[in-house]
Parts: sequence; C-alpha cells; structure tokens
Amino acid sequence: MEKHLDELQPFFEPRGVAVIGASAQPGKGGHIIVQNLLRCGFRGPIYPVNPRGVKILDLPSYPTIDECPDPLDLAVLIVPREAVPPSLEQAARRGVKYAIIASGGFTDAGDAFGLELDARVRRIAAENGIRYMGPNSIGTIDAGSGFITSITANDPLPPGNVSILGQTGLLASGLTRMIADRQPFGVRRIACLGNKNDLNEIDFLHAFADDDRTGAVGCYLEGVKNGRDFLAAARATAQKKPLIVLKGGISESGSVAAASHTGSLAGSAAVFHGALRQVGAIEAESLEDLFDLLSGFGNLPQPKGPGLGLVSITGAGCVLGADYAERFGLRLPTLQPATIESIGRVCPDWSSIRNPVDMWPAIERNGVAEAYRLIGLAMARDPGIDLLILTTTLFDGSFFDITPVIAAIREIAPEKPVATVLIGGAAEENRAWTVNARRAGAATFADLSRAIRVLGTMAQIPHPSGESA
Amino acid sequence: MEKHLDELQPFFEPRGVAVIGASAQPGKGGHIIVQNLLRCGFRGPIYPVNPRGVKILDLPSYPTIDECPDPLDLAVLIVPREAVPPSLEQAARRGVKYAIIASGGFTDAGDAFGLELDARVRRIAAENGIRYMGPNSIGTIDAGSGFITSITANDPLPPGNVSILGQTGLLASGLTRMIADRQPFGVRRIACLGNKNDLNEIDFLHAFADDDRTGAVGCYLEGVKNGRDFLAAARATAQKKPLIVLKGGISESGSVAAASHTGSLAGSAAVFHGALRQVGAIEAESLEDLFDLLSGFGNLPQPKGPGLGLVSITGAGCVLGADYAERFGLRLPTLQPATIESIGRVCPDWSSIRNPVDMWPAIERNGVAEAYRLIGLAMARDPGIDLLILTTTLFDGSFFDITPVIAAIREIAPEKPVATVLIGGAAEENRAWTVNARRAGAATFADLSRAIRVLGTMAQIPHPSGESA
Repeated sequence: MEKHLDELQPFFEPRGVAVIGASAQPGKGGHIIVQNLLRCGFRGPIYPVNPRGVKILDLPSYPTIDECPDPLDLAVLIVPREAVPPSLEQAARRGVKYAIIASGGFTDAGDAFGLELDARVRRIAAENGIRYMGPNSIGTIDAGSGFITSITANDPLPPGNVSILGQTGLLASGLTRMIADRQPFGVRRIACLGNKNDLNEIDFLHAFADDDRTGAVGCYLEGVKNGRDFLAAARATAQKKPLIVLKGGISESGSVAAASHTGSLAGSAAVFHGALRQVGAIEAESLEDLFDLLSGFGNLPQPKGPGLGLVSITGAGCVLGADYAERFGLRLPTLQPATIESIGRVCPDWSSIRNPVDMWPAIERNGVAEAYRLIGLAMARDPGIDLLILTTTLFDGSFFDITPVIAAIREIAPEKPVATVLIGGAAEENRAWTVNARRAGAATFADLSRAIRVLGTMAQIPHPSGESA
Repeated sequence: MEKHLDELQPFFEPRGVAVIGASAQPGKGGHIIVQNLLRCGFRGPIYPVNPRGVKILDLPSYPTIDECPDPLDLAVLIVPREAVPPSLEQAARRGVKYAIIASGGFTDAGDAFGLELDARVRRIAAENGIRYMGPNSIGTIDAGSGFITSITANDPLPPGNVSILGQTGLLASGLTRMIADRQPFGVRRIACLGNKNDLNEIDFLHAFADDDRTGAVGCYLEGVKNGRDFLAAARATAQKKPLIVLKGGISESGSVAAASHTGSLAGSAAVFHGALRQVGAIEAESLEDLFDLLSGFGNLPQPKGPGLGLVSITGAGCVLGADYAERFGLRLPTLQPATIESIGRVCPDWSSIRNPVDMWPAIERNGVAEAYRLIGLAMARDPGIDLLILTTTLFDGSFFDITPVIAAIREIAPEKPVATVLIGGAAEENRAWTVNARRAGAATFADLSRAIRVLGTMAQIPHPSGESA
C-alpha cells in the first residue's frame, strides 16, 4: 500500500510548488494561495507564476512555469478555465507530475465549452502521466508542514492526527477557520476533492490509511466514483484507524442537489448506511456530529470498556448524563468503596456519594479547581471506570484552569479518555476553555449529549489497532 | 385562570423586595442578589436585610425585615438553613405573603435536622398564607423589569417572549450567561423551582400560559409532583402557546440521579413520552435542543406550511439541507418560473437554478450582501415557499452585514420564518452574527441539521393561536 502514500506526498509536502495564476492583487484566489503558504509557515520553495513577473508578497514571480527553478514537483492552477489546458501542458513540459486544478467551470458548469475543456485536461494529464486533483478543487492542507492551497484566507491549523477528505471547499475555508479558532482537534492533512476527474476519495483514503501520523480519518462525500472500490478502501482504512463518514445526498432531493453540486450520483441511502456499517466505518449525522466524532477519536485513547465516570457541577448534568449513558451505550458503574471514601473526604458528611457525582458540595468546601482535581483523581483510580467526563458551567466563582486537573488525571490513568463539557457560558469563555482542555489532553463538547454520544460510539467500536488513536 | 398569573406576579415584578441575608461581602450569594438587581436594572425598592445594618452596594440595609418600609411584597431568604424558619416567621409578621427560599439543606440534604426544618417551614407558610418557591430555589428572573434573584452574577438578559421554568439552577446561572452573551432569543421570565414544597411546575405553567407577553414556554423537569395535574397544566399551556419540555431522569439510572438531585420521582420514560405528545407538548432531546427549539419558537412566526426555501453559500449546504428536509418533515418546493427568472438575473448564464439555491456564482457577480438580498427576496416572494433558511460560512470575502437582508425579507413576507445558519467560522464572529440576525428578526442555528429540525417541528405542530409566537 505504501505507493498510495508516496504517490500523494507531493500534494501535502511538495519539494517545490508553482502557483500558476498567482496575483499581486489582495483578495484574488491567486494571491490568497501565496499569502496562506507564507502565513501558515510552508518552508518549501514557492514559485508564483505571473505573466507580468511582478513581485507577490515579496516573492519574485516567474512569467511562465518554465522559468521556475528546481526543485518543483507540484503545480497549482488558478487561472481562467480556458487557460487551464495550456497551463497544464506547460507544467508537463517542465516535468511536473502533480497538479491541483483550482479553476472551475468544467463538468461542474456543464456547458459545451466546459465539457470540451474537461476532455482536453484529461488527455493532457493522461499523455504526460500527471496525477491531479480537481478541476474545481480547493486542494490540500498539511498542518505540520504549513502547506496549504486554500483560496480563502486561513490561519495556521493546530497540528495533530486528524485527516479529512471530502467534496466541499468548506473543509479548507469556513471549517478550517473554526478549527484554527476553537481547536476541537489537531489536524494532520485535509484534502478537498473537487470534480474528481483523476484522484478521488479512494486514493486519499488509502493514503490516510497508510499514513502513520494520521490517527483518525473524517470523510464528507456526496457521491462515490465506484461504490465497490470505495467500500474496499473504506474497509481497508477502518481496519487500521477510526473512519468517520458523513454522506450527503442520501435523500432523493439531496441526491439531485449533489448532482448539481459536484456531479455526483449519490445512490440509495439504506444501501449506503448498511454498507458503511459492514465495512466498520462510523456514520456521522451532520457536519457538527462529524467534528464531534473527530474531536473524540482524534484526542482520546480508546476506552477499554463502557464504564462512564461522570463528575458534574450541576445536578441536572448528573440526571441528563445518566439518561444519555443509557441511550448511547455507556454504563455508570457503582463506585468502589475506596473511591467513595476518597470523595467523601472532600464532601460534607451529609452528601450521598454515587456515580454520577454531583460535586457542588465539594466545591463549596474546597474551591472549584481542587474539587475537580480530587474527585477526578478518585474516579480515575476506580478500576470500574473506563472513561471520565467532567461537566461544568461558567459563572463567576466557577471559573478555573482545567489544565492541571486534566494533566493530573492523565498522569495516573493515561489509558482512560477524559472529556469536558461546558454548559452555557459566553462564547469567548467557551472557546478558551476548549483550547486549554484539548491542549491538556481532553476532548471538549458543547453539550453533554454530544459528549456521551461520541464516547459511547468510541466504546462500542473496537479500535482497529487495539491502541490509542 | 387569571388568578395564577396575578398570584405569581410578586415573584417577577414585586412592588418591593427584602433580601434577608444580604451581605456586604462580594462573592457571597446574599451580596450577588443585590448586585444583580442593581446591574439588571430593577427599579422597584430593594431592602437588604442585614443584622449589622451595613451599607450594601450603596443601599442602606435594615437589621430586620420589620424595619423595611412599604411597599414590600416579596422576601428572598438566603441565610443558613437553621435561620430560615425564624426569618420566614418575621416576614410573616411583617405581612409578606410571598417568599423565595434560596437556602438549601432541607429535603435536598435529607438529614434529620433538614427534614425537621422543612416541616417547620411548611407549617409557618401554611399558618400565614405564604406562597413560596423552594427551599433550594435560585428563584426568578424577569428580563423586562430587571428583577432577578439568581445567586450567581448575571448580566441583563435580552427582553423577549420566551419563558422558562425548571428544576435546575443552571437556568439562572450558566445558561443565562449564555443567553446574555449569544442572545439566542429574548427572555420574558425564568423560574427555578428548587425543592417545590409549595409552588411547583403546575403553578408556573399556568402563569406562563396566562401571560400575554409569553410567546413560548420552555421547561426542564426531573420529576413532577402530580402526573395527572401536570399533564392537565401542560395541555392547557400547549393549547395557548408552544410548550417545549426536556425531561431528565427518563432512564433508570437517570431516575436515581434525579432522586438525589431534587428528590424527584421520575417515572417511566415511555409513558412520559407518549403523554407529552398527547397533550401537545414538544419534547426536547437535550439542553441544546431545548434552546434551539426556543430559539425557533421564540423568534419566528409559525410557518404556514412545510415548503422550505434554502439559500446556501456552499454546495454541501444544499445537499445536506435536502437530506435534513426529508428527515425532519420539510419539503423543497419547485420554484415558480418568476422566481427562477429573478434569481437568473443575478447569476451567470450557465447556472442551473433550483431549490436549494447554491449561490456562490451570484456572490462572485454581485458581492455577498447583494447576492443574499436579491436571492432571498426572490425566494420570499415565491408563493410555494413557507420558510427560508440562509446558510453561509465565514471567511474573508464572505463577511457581510446580514441585518438589511433579513429586514428586507421580513418586510415583504413578514409571515415567513427566516433562519440563518453559519457553518464554521470563529466563535466570536459567530456570536456577533447570531446577535445581529436575531435582532433583525431571524433565528440562528449552529448547524443546518439543527435549523431544519426546529423549523420542521414548527411546521408540523399546529400553532395554538394560529398566529405568530
């Protein structure tokens, strides 16, 4: 399988990239690509190609790709559609074997000229042995190397182990903005497939499956080029690491919309659901759910069992948490006598101590940070507890730094997943909390039902490698 | 029914309030209550009662409630539990007929002394004709009058038509902080029930049902004191306005947790689900879902039918939106020729125009604000469209002020609900967007599936009054 990864390597860490259609004009896609590469810290050579040879963001540009020096293995094309075939031919003459065609207006436009251009692109690529993404592809992001071909302005993404592929530019625009800001997980690689003339979901699934630094794979698809091959690739991926799939176009009208969006034939919903389950993939229900699942699988070790320890600042969190545990397949084990005794030492005498733990009395006695630490550690030591959720709510008097609490728990029980949930609070406080908690090694969810949905899924899916993601 | 509302009026707009246990020490509950009343702009007389008669936040305090001048109709008790019965007796002698007992440690503690105190409180109230909330009640908020008895620091809430009652202090702490910050809807009144010795969910349901300024009612309950009476009150409420209920403790272990939290007997899940449906209430699945539903029912008029018009900046939004419409009971009507023609004028010739509308081509031509306005108006004029969703994603080049767009749509089609959805983007941008969109008359949701879940529910539930909420 190694060839898949090697073959796609230039799309993520090219030894040199030419941006054909690079522009000195801020706001243009051909400007933003260069700007993003610099802002995200890509260290490889960047060769803006611009017919007038102007300086672009202090980089010299080249009138044609022929003038670009070595090393150069990838060309990104962001030119008017009619200029794509000649540009690709020039890249071929320069010896470039990999291309991202960002320009649209081919099968996605569907007019006669677009179809003609599309046929020419296919022919040029085939004759010259060029592998390409698109047309109409926003391309790739590699958070570690800082390589990025998005045509919308991006900040650097937190590097991590989640790789995502899919059929929407959102993956490299609005959603990356969210990832950079709230950091629900760290990113390894992102691939936006576009029209999928050549490289498609199967290629990237194999590449992510083979990639040692990818711990979990997310996938948004509207249609697949070849159902049988896709399922084989999904099975091969899911045998190596968690694979979470959101499928758009599962309804009849969704399927029509998909045909219009990316020219995909979506196929029957029921068949797709069943097939995904059979190959061991996890189906997400919405973009939000996809990101929640990636947040769990990307940040947390695989739970050894379904035993949930729930520590909550609010009684309602205990009550609702117990309901969700039943709904999503977790259990609330009875605490060991030693655990009850430890927790009892930090609670008033009249407290009845059980799982879930309503910790308000302990907070009144010990302060909020210490109460979470002491109870969290006691729960983490309990052999019946496989995973921990700490639920809190942000108001004056409940603010605290969660990171030492998570660090202490992870030190004594590194094999047990820890998640935090914030109920309510202001948006900016929530954001800061999420970032801190993730850096400390937890996953964070916006609602307790979402946390337990994700952890319940993780506990039920046997981890492919038997190890932490 | 009018007596219900009149009877509870002093809990929301008292003509004078005594805070027994008021404290000069910042951070104490008895200090925060006074601080909140001032910060939230309550204009009625506030009488801090403090044995040492110190000034509290520039207000004179009174050694006992006897010294407090008129008018005075409500006492808030935040004193050690053993001081509750004598304080209540003093309030009774002063002629006060309404009390909020914030102090805990009664049936919620469950020890012998707590139970004895509880019996004394009941007897004093009964002998003196006092109606009270609690013990262990964080009390009430009235966003319009600025009246608030929360023991956690609060900012003023946006006034509006949503009233909420429930068995968790979260409703007046972490969640109010979220409401003040993100403003998912405007608030009329909030009631936190606590131990429910006297006043309970039935009283507040009736009061909110009778209240002309309450347009939608939200309810979080762990148990009900009397199932039959509760269902009658829920039916009476749901006949007048949308009633959304989140029930905690529906699982076996959730029921045990509920008994520990508020001493409630939760009862069978299946029976409760069926009964809620029968009385016309809407069941929420999580706190997040409860707030989403309140955001829809609180901000939007009742849709006249299930015809969804979906306008999306992203093709994935069109595809997923069509899927969710099918799942949640909305239809995507074929657009009228006039609508297609209008939209065609702002799109490139090659665009195929259908519902959902993928508007990216129009944005490239007309700029983002104008594209949303023109397409939004064309969709709003279409007689087959009953409700509109505008989906966008925030990156440089897609930022715009949504408020004139919403205002223009609402002007030509005030009867059609408008919702916006932001996919991705940074937390603070999202917050600002939500606030602006709501002020302009839309509801905003964090995920398209949540928007369509709410609008689908609204379209399927016949509106009690046949009018907008």
